[in-house]
Amino acid sequence: MKIAVFGTGGVGETIGSKLVELGHEVKMGSRTANNEKAAAWAKKAGAKASAGTFAEAAKFGELIFNATLGAGSVEAFKMAGEENCTGKTVVDISNPLDFSKGFPPFLFVSNTDSLAETLQRAVPKAKVVKALNTMPAALMVNPRLLKDSHHTFVAGSDEGAKTQVKALLASFGWTADEVIDVGDLTGARALEQYLPLWARLYGTLKTMFNVKIVR
Amino acid sequence: MKIAVFGTGGVGETIGSKLVELGHEVKMGSRTANNEKAAAWAKKAGAKASAGTFAEAAKFGELIFNATLGAGSVEAFKMAGEENCTGKTVVDISNPLDFSKGFPPFLFVSNTDSLAETLQRAVPKAKVVKALNTMPAALMVNPRLLKDSHHTFVAGSDEGAKTQVKALLASFGWTADEVIDVGDLTGARALEQYLPLWARLYGTLKTMFNVKIVR
Repeated sequence: MKIAVFGTGGVGETIGSKLVELGHEVKMGSRTANNEKAAAWAKKAGAKASAGTFAEAAKFGELIFNATLGAGSVEAFKMAGEENCTGKTVVDISNPLDFSKGFPPFLFVSNTDSLAETLQRAVPKAKVVKALNTMPAALMVNPRLLKDSHHTFVAGSDEGAKTQVKALLASFGWTADEVIDVGDLTGARALEQYLPLWARLYGTLKTMFNVKIVR
Repeated sequence: MKIAVFGTGGVGETIGSKLVELGHEVKMGSRTANNEKAAAWAKKAGAKASAGTFAEAAKFGELIFNATLGAGSVEAFKMAGEENCTGKTVVDISNPLDFSKGFPPFLFVSNTDSLAETLQRAVPKAKVVKALNTMPAALMVNPRLLKDSHHTFVAGSDEGAKTQVKALLASFGWTADEVIDVGDLTGARALEQYLPLWARLYGTLKTMFNVKIVR
């Protein structure tokens, strides 16, 4: 499958490399065509990896991962262009974190709206699915790094797009019962509002962790 | 120990009954001295249980559990009176849930403030500790209802008050490593903002559950 990954940070690199490893063709998108980090990643990741602008990556991809910083996500999709996103599944991993008042961060959108819904409004003909935003990148693509089982959540209003995302999660190593579907895209509010607790726990535990839902 | 429990709902009853069972003297507080639910609870719970106004309960208790509905919590403490709360630990279990737009609820205070901090400002000489707000009442007082281990969180700015709350949690059956201290009272923002995810998961799973932090 041809996949776009927006964002050149650690999350974008980790997701991009895993997708290449799984046999997908991946174009990493950023503001400029000659972003050094994107070029370095593509060189390292091999023949199936390439880099380009957000618009080039979106046009290339049948599916788009959004791994940009939350504060830049809407602009990334505006630069990508609505026409290049039409009909495509957007896996939104970003979080609306604002560190301007220090750590722990607060959220620049929350409660009765979410970043995922904001993105959906920016590219109304795309199919946004919130996923994987509740843990570090290393765990997203390799859940077995933790010995106990644990959970990941998806929220989205297009069932076909969610099925596609669940298949990708399975290819990352998530078992079916480790993936909890919390409903339509307004569920992204809940997934993003978990982040303040994640940040507090990280500040306390100072190690990699994730939540397991114990019944 | 003499303990006040504010609130006559399921959470107040469950907490009150557990405290009586553990040998404490408990006065359930509500708006009026002759609240029928409080009187019925006190009759059922036995000689160490009694009922009264918020002010009577606060005056009686060396420690206060707040198990009122979030929307009524500030008023309960105003009715209790600052002087009756001075120097006392307040264990705030409430959540700022607003169901006016249906299920799942949104939060009427969140992100850069919390209900626990609002209560602390209402009774500035009390020592508010946020705890137990992330699960159903049955689990609060009997964590072994779930077979796997799971976690509860505390947040508060007074270390002595937190130590007191942790001792009560231990008496409820929580092991020391199941209690995670997330820091000062601003941590209540994180604990309260988890509730939208709790509500979404409850809507999906339709069973009792709690989170385990897997490292």
